[in-house]
Amino acid sequence: MLMTTESTKQEQLHPCNAYTDLKRRFRDVGRLEAIGEILGRDFLTAMPDGAYRSRLNQIAYLYKRVHQDIVNKDIRRLLDKALTHEDNHSTDWDDWDRANLRAMASVYDEHSLIDDDLMEYNAKVANEGRRCHRNALENHDWDSAREHLRNVVDVERRIAEKKLKARGGEDLYDALLQDYCPGYSHSTIDKWFNQLEGSIKGLIPEVMAFQAQKPEPIQLADSYPVDSQMWLNEEMLALFGFDFERGGLYQTGHNPVEGGTPDDTRLVIKNVDTSNFLDSLKSAMHEAGHGLYIQGLPRKSWRYQPVAADLGSAMQESQALLVEMLIGRTEEFFEFLSPRLEGLFKAMHDPTLHPENLCAIKTHVRPTVDRKRADEVTYFLHILLRYRLERDLIEGRIQVEQLPEMWTESSYELLGVSPQDHGEGILQDVHWFVAKFGYFPSYTIGHMLATQFYQTMRQDLPDFYTLIRTGNFQPITAWLNKYVHSRGRLLGPHELMRDITGKEASPEFLMAHLRERYLREEIKI
Amino acid sequence: MLMTTESTKQEQLHPCNAYTDLKRRFRDVGRLEAIGEILGRDFLTAMPDGAYRSRLNQIAYLYKRVHQDIVNKDIRRLLDKALTHEDNHSTDWDDWDRANLRAMASVYDEHSLIDDDLMEYNAKVANEGRRCHRNALENHDWDSAREHLRNVVDVERRIAEKKLKARGGEDLYDALLQDYCPGYSHSTIDKWFNQLEGSIKGLIPEVMAFQAQKPEPIQLADSYPVDSQMWLNEEMLALFGFDFERGGLYQTGHNPVEGGTPDDTRLVIKNVDTSNFLDSLKSAMHEAGHGLYIQGLPRKSWRYQPVAADLGSAMQESQALLVEMLIGRTEEFFEFLSPRLEGLFKAMHDPTLHPENLCAIKTHVRPTVDRKRADEVTYFLHILLRYRLERDLIEGRIQVEQLPEMWTESSYELLGVSPQDHGEGILQDVHWFVAKFGYFPSYTIGHMLATQFYQTMRQDLPDFYTLIRTGNFQPITAWLNKYVHSRGRLLGPHELMRDITGKEASPEFLMAHLRERYLREEIKI
Repeated sequence: MLMTTESTKQEQLHPCNAYTDLKRRFRDVGRLEAIGEILGRDFLTAMPDGAYRSRLNQIAYLYKRVHQDIVNKDIRRLLDKALTHEDNHSTDWDDWDRANLRAMASVYDEHSLIDDDLMEYNAKVANEGRRCHRNALENHDWDSAREHLRNVVDVERRIAEKKLKARGGEDLYDALLQDYCPGYSHSTIDKWFNQLEGSIKGLIPEVMAFQAQKPEPIQLADSYPVDSQMWLNEEMLALFGFDFERGGLYQTGHNPVEGGTPDDTRLVIKNVDTSNFLDSLKSAMHEAGHGLYIQGLPRKSWRYQPVAADLGSAMQESQALLVEMLIGRTEEFFEFLSPRLEGLFKAMHDPTLHPENLCAIKTHVRPTVDRKRADEVTYFLHILLRYRLERDLIEGRIQVEQLPEMWTESSYELLGVSPQDHGEGILQDVHWFVAKFGYFPSYTIGHMLATQFYQTMRQDLPDFYTLIRTGNFQPITAWLNKYVHSRGRLLGPHELMRDITGKEASPEFLMAHLRERYLREEIKI
Repeated sequence: MLMTTESTKQEQLHPCNAYTDLKRRFRDVGRLEAIGEILGRDFLTAMPDGAYRSRLNQIAYLYKRVHQDIVNKDIRRLLDKALTHEDNHSTDWDDWDRANLRAMASVYDEHSLIDDDLMEYNAKVANEGRRCHRNALENHDWDSAREHLRNVVDVERRIAEKKLKARGGEDLYDALLQDYCPGYSHSTIDKWFNQLEGSIKGLIPEVMAFQAQKPEPIQLADSYPVDSQMWLNEEMLALFGFDFERGGLYQTGHNPVEGGTPDDTRLVIKNVDTSNFLDSLKSAMHEAGHGLYIQGLPRKSWRYQPVAADLGSAMQESQALLVEMLIGRTEEFFEFLSPRLEGLFKAMHDPTLHPENLCAIKTHVRPTVDRKRADEVTYFLHILLRYRLERDLIEGRIQVEQLPEMWTESSYELLGVSPQDHGEGILQDVHWFVAKFGYFPSYTIGHMLATQFYQTMRQDLPDFYTLIRTGNFQPITAWLNKYVHSRGRLLGPHELMRDITGKEASPEFLMAHLRERYLREEIKI
């Protein structure tokens, strides 16, 4: 009766009927989740303000339904049947089907740990947080923010307790971490972060001494029209091969958000600041990395299936940081950009736009209070600050009330600078407001993975830096697509890393990259 | 657990538990339907093109779920219990609760007649039709359009058969009519339309003779910037009291669509034509009428409940035409508009913008092939043409293949003019493409109802024409809100008409209005 769909792996009949049935059910779950993504995008970009409360309830209710569709006896029974079938008729199962079944089971497990009311409430709190954060930031209003955060921490602790009880783990925080950085345990992260803390604290004075030999960069001091900036941002996305037929780049009054689906990838950056085009470019490049990953997932054959999803936040951030920080801060990148900027901003031979100067601005190392504008070397310390605070909050060792004070102390201790107000401190990030406890380590793990991929990619692609210098980014995207994007969840994060680089993930690669870029040392791993 | 909601009639506990449960279930159905509205709006205004096919399937699937949520044994059982409770404990039920229960039962009955796959397929075909229509119109491509229409007629006939069988009615077409014009039977409409056909065919030569005494209006012949037109359109909406906090006005490459919910009423008109601001203004005024009705529905207390819905397409069109045609074509309206247009379009003393000239343009009677630009007198003949063709298609008396020929014949017979190509004929309207068979009569019934309301309103509001001349439209909206919008489905369409005007609906009021406006005759009903 329904229109014929091209035969895809999603629609194909499998010898195991239970698995065929599961594919159909997960396709429908995927459709509801895709609808949720559209609601989220609309919420940020087009929704009239007065729709706010009703929309929150609609989104929350939709996620409750998704949850109910996943957690029910039918699914459990079908999974058991399919898993048995896989054991008994292993030749009927190819690698993709196996991976898909594993991914289905893991989606089920994740959802089965919490009940649908908690799911609904969590979705509501998370969506509410975005506006709460914006208002608190605008009004420097820690009091109202505190109430919301207390609420969030309470919900997240309850979720963590349920997860820890059901699937085990090292501690409450570990239970949350697993949603964002699957496969990386709390103790592994702790070990890596301790190692990085020592190395980076040692590196900073070396870099400062090294860069003291060079003149200070000239800071941007012009007005850069919004339209020109957005044209540049969109063109950069296009050069990297982002498909505007299946997505776009938008501005919002809120913080940026990646997301969407491979069919509809609308990236959102914060409203453009006319005094600094490098900020919106950075944000667009970051979202481009996410967007290319999303658009490159195995869409045609596996559209809504769990195997067609990404490998979680850490892998997502690796793609975003590879584009934004690794490629987007090379000298060659600015050599490509600079003459075009002179034309775009009508500033012939403007010394601030010289490639060396732009590169100097973007690679200048100086501890600041602001994570989003932090340099690549001190960036980790911003993550470490947040990681420790959120870990202690979830473990119940500190209370929400103590956050501003502890933030200030910690900032001074780690970075040597203190925020002047809540906006520069506790209110700068949206993550906790939208219930993303356990997300922050994704940035540093992503940075680690990115540098490790980057090293292999440079060996694989001949004339790598010529590609960048000439604005020919598509071979880079093709490489990422082949090894990462198009594989969805065919491999786990560890298998993927071994497959691509022949090595385990390790902070060594990040350190080697930083020493190469900031001290001109050769890489010796 | 969930955030406290202000106590509304929707959330209140009722002595009848089954009814309380029904209210909760219909609230959730309403949330999914509201999500469907957002998807529809996004589809027309923001969705990237490549998302088209997956979006169709998502929308269709969502409506399948809505259908399943309504048609199930629980709902049937709860309805029976509640209806029994209402009989046995009538004092527990106030008018709103009674009306809500009736509306619930009628939603259930309507849905229970068709199965969920048909529902899904219908939603898909309907959404597909919008693009199919746009492409056929752009490429003058009747061949591809014909295939789609065959498909739609086939589905609609099957739906009509099921509905006719289950709930009775006069014939297949009557079964479809009931969805758009509840309460007006096929034979009633036939009777009215025959009566109108005779009267209007007689009226046209009288009007032509009458208007021949006046000079021909000067046609618009300038370029009117899109931004200025949209500013004017939005300001007109605002003057009528449309709440931009809960909605907005957008342009689309497709045909205009009303819709949304009282919380999020995004009106969509076709991309502005710079050569004629009166077209986009007309469209905006028409959508304003719909939008005010939607925004004025009993939102706070009854948000998603069936009693808070509108009274169907005929009543919707009455509100749209009252704003667009009745108020928007008065001399006083153009007296208000004219000096502002001179400023807006920078054309001081431009004779085309004189109030008399604008009014003459908009009230000039001349049969044309184009419904959307038809004058108020010949408008009915356009509806009659479509009404007869769609009735005969559904009854199986004619085939889709014959449509272009029959359209041309019918147009010549009724209007004395023939389309020069498919775009001027069979392809001009989107309705059939989106499966709206049975909708067209709503325009004429709406026009009838509008003139009947209008007559009472003019008696009720002192200095009615002064209000219009001074751009003070909000008392008019307040009147409509009090008597129509805010009552949702508290009364049926017939009860409502009697309550407001003390009379039954009848085509006499429309005829009297036309004779008053176009022949300067006094109204004597």
